[in-house]
Amino acid sequence: MSSLLEKTLANIGPLDQTAIKQAKERLDNLTKPLESLGVLEDLAMQLAGITGNPMPQVGDKVVLVMAGDHGVAAEKVTCFPQEVTQQQITNFIRGGGGISVMTRHVGARVECVDVGIAAHLDYPGLIQKKVALGTKNMAKGPAMTREEAIRSLEVGIEVAEDQIRRGATLIGTGEMGIANTTPSSAILAAFSGLPVRCIVGRGAGINDTMLRHKTAIIEQSLAVNQPDTRDPIDVLSKIGGLEIGAIAGVMLAAAAHRIPVIIDGFISGAGALIASRIEPQSRNYMIASHNSVEPGHNILLKLLDLEPMLQMKMRLGEGTGAALAMNLVEASCKMIHEMATFAEAGVTKQEI
Amino acid sequence: MSSLLEKTLANIGPLDQTAIKQAKERLDNLTKPLESLGVLEDLAMQLAGITGNPMPQVGDKVVLVMAGDHGVAAEKVTCFPQEVTQQQITNFIRGGGGISVMTRHVGARVECVDVGIAAHLDYPGLIQKKVALGTKNMAKGPAMTREEAIRSLEVGIEVAEDQIRRGATLIGTGEMGIANTTPSSAILAAFSGLPVRCIVGRGAGINDTMLRHKTAIIEQSLAVNQPDTRDPIDVLSKIGGLEIGAIAGVMLAAAAHRIPVIIDGFISGAGALIASRIEPQSRNYMIASHNSVEPGHNILLKLLDLEPMLQMKMRLGEGTGAALAMNLVEASCKMIHEMATFAEAGVTKQEI
Repeated sequence: MSSLLEKTLANIGPLDQTAIKQAKERLDNLTKPLESLGVLEDLAMQLAGITGNPMPQVGDKVVLVMAGDHGVAAEKVTCFPQEVTQQQITNFIRGGGGISVMTRHVGARVECVDVGIAAHLDYPGLIQKKVALGTKNMAKGPAMTREEAIRSLEVGIEVAEDQIRRGATLIGTGEMGIANTTPSSAILAAFSGLPVRCIVGRGAGINDTMLRHKTAIIEQSLAVNQPDTRDPIDVLSKIGGLEIGAIAGVMLAAAAHRIPVIIDGFISGAGALIASRIEPQSRNYMIASHNSVEPGHNILLKLLDLEPMLQMKMRLGEGTGAALAMNLVEASCKMIHEMATFAEAGVTKQEI
Repeated sequence: MSSLLEKTLANIGPLDQTAIKQAKERLDNLTKPLESLGVLEDLAMQLAGITGNPMPQVGDKVVLVMAGDHGVAAEKVTCFPQEVTQQQITNFIRGGGGISVMTRHVGARVECVDVGIAAHLDYPGLIQKKVALGTKNMAKGPAMTREEAIRSLEVGIEVAEDQIRRGATLIGTGEMGIANTTPSSAILAAFSGLPVRCIVGRGAGINDTMLRHKTAIIEQSLAVNQPDTRDPIDVLSKIGGLEIGAIAGVMLAAAAHRIPVIIDGFISGAGALIASRIEPQSRNYMIASHNSVEPGHNILLKLLDLEPMLQMKMRLGEGTGAALAMNLVEASCKMIHEMATFAEAGVTKQEI
């Protein structure tokens, strides 16, 4: 294991229970029935536990879009050609992508990172961290070497740490990578032990015939590679993706630096699963945003014991769900800061 | 029926199908897989149909908090004393309530309306529209006269029309009224035909004993009053509430003026049910925000054939869920305006 990864893992600790208790005390004195703001209260307590501040605040917000291509796209598991990865990244940086619009809407920055686009793309504003020109075809052998998988985790750590140094207080994960629901489904199948057919979905919108083919390709990838689920880096390297590794790295770095991190959709979820298997405590620093149409997403969140806040039938990825959820996380902090207590407002407290 | 109510109902028409079709065409050309932004796309099309503008926009936003007291509170169906209605309204206007914080957070205004607080409250900023000093105890007889019920609907229409004249482009409904989950449950039981025990919930947080008592009181109210579900104003007058009538009025006025209106929680939902039974087409102008913990809320939304976007386990009411949903409605409009098309961005379109 690399020294950056080792150092990061060593810094991941438990949530601050004292701060959570103090936040809970304040929440219980605000002018509302006990616990009636539900998940907003849970978020405020989680942020207290993460940051150690019983009155947590959200400042600078950023969505990190990790981009990578997939050798398995050669198996025709998707309905968009591979060059769309780079085309879309350019679109995101120019401001016309779904994630561009959603981050502007919630007052967040968006940063795009080339972890493994299958082309040399030197676009202004793109963070250059290329590990390889895409992964290899996992239906025929390992997607990456172990070294590449570790390097993808490090890229996530490096980018997250750079953003945290710049002042980021809330990070959302996003991605762009044609075919990346295929490795994400493989990762979930490996860790859950569920049959691929119970997990696999239509990604960007494939038909029934392609769905059967995609299922077979994922089953073949698992059979060819025999990933060892006791070794999450083995799983990542054999049936994962470079952007998925980078997302896992972002999550580990967020936990190490005590910064909340929002999971977007299915691919971000696969990254979260890898991170949580590398260091189980990292899960406490994660927030689930939405429940996507991709059937594996809900299964994946249950495996992480996380509940999504948004039911929007979205399946775009990019970080769009994470961006929308940032508004809810901010609302939770404003609640704890700005709501009056029963004493301040002269409101009679609950009788029982 | 009153002339204001009659005139309002006469102005409610179908959605603009041409505008919906034009919005759909644009959505299908934006740089994303077809329909992959799910409910955001549905919202954009609904707003196009409501406003007749295929590129809908959200400008001024307001949450209307309708306040009313309930004679049935004398039956001890709740754990907060009745004076909390007026205490909380004062808190909302001062800026310390949950709804104050959430509306500020999403850039909306909040307006509080006295439709039937059980006290003479002359607080600066409170819109005075008192119909009565609370309803009568529905466990013993009708909550209101038919005239009072119609007047409560008119109050909602008047307040909504005033806000629309002021420039409101998106309205959220909210309420404050100690004991108001009790009439809301009675209304839902009447219209759904379901047993009260399948609908009733803990409101602000009552225990098992009080829940059994509340169930019995609702059953008694239905038996005593025998509301005629073919006549929604009869239901409103016998087992409803003044703020519930005003919420229904807001919804009818929004539909008549082709303005989208967001349903908050269970009590707003009861108002939506009344409005949709008075004029079924009004339902097309409604947007469901969240799914509350109150068990009847989900049943009620299914009856309206509406799906909530937020799963936040909230049960505060006031309009807090509607306020949070405003951010999502705005996101849908920004998507249709700001996302690049495939042609603009030079991104290859889906192959199938």
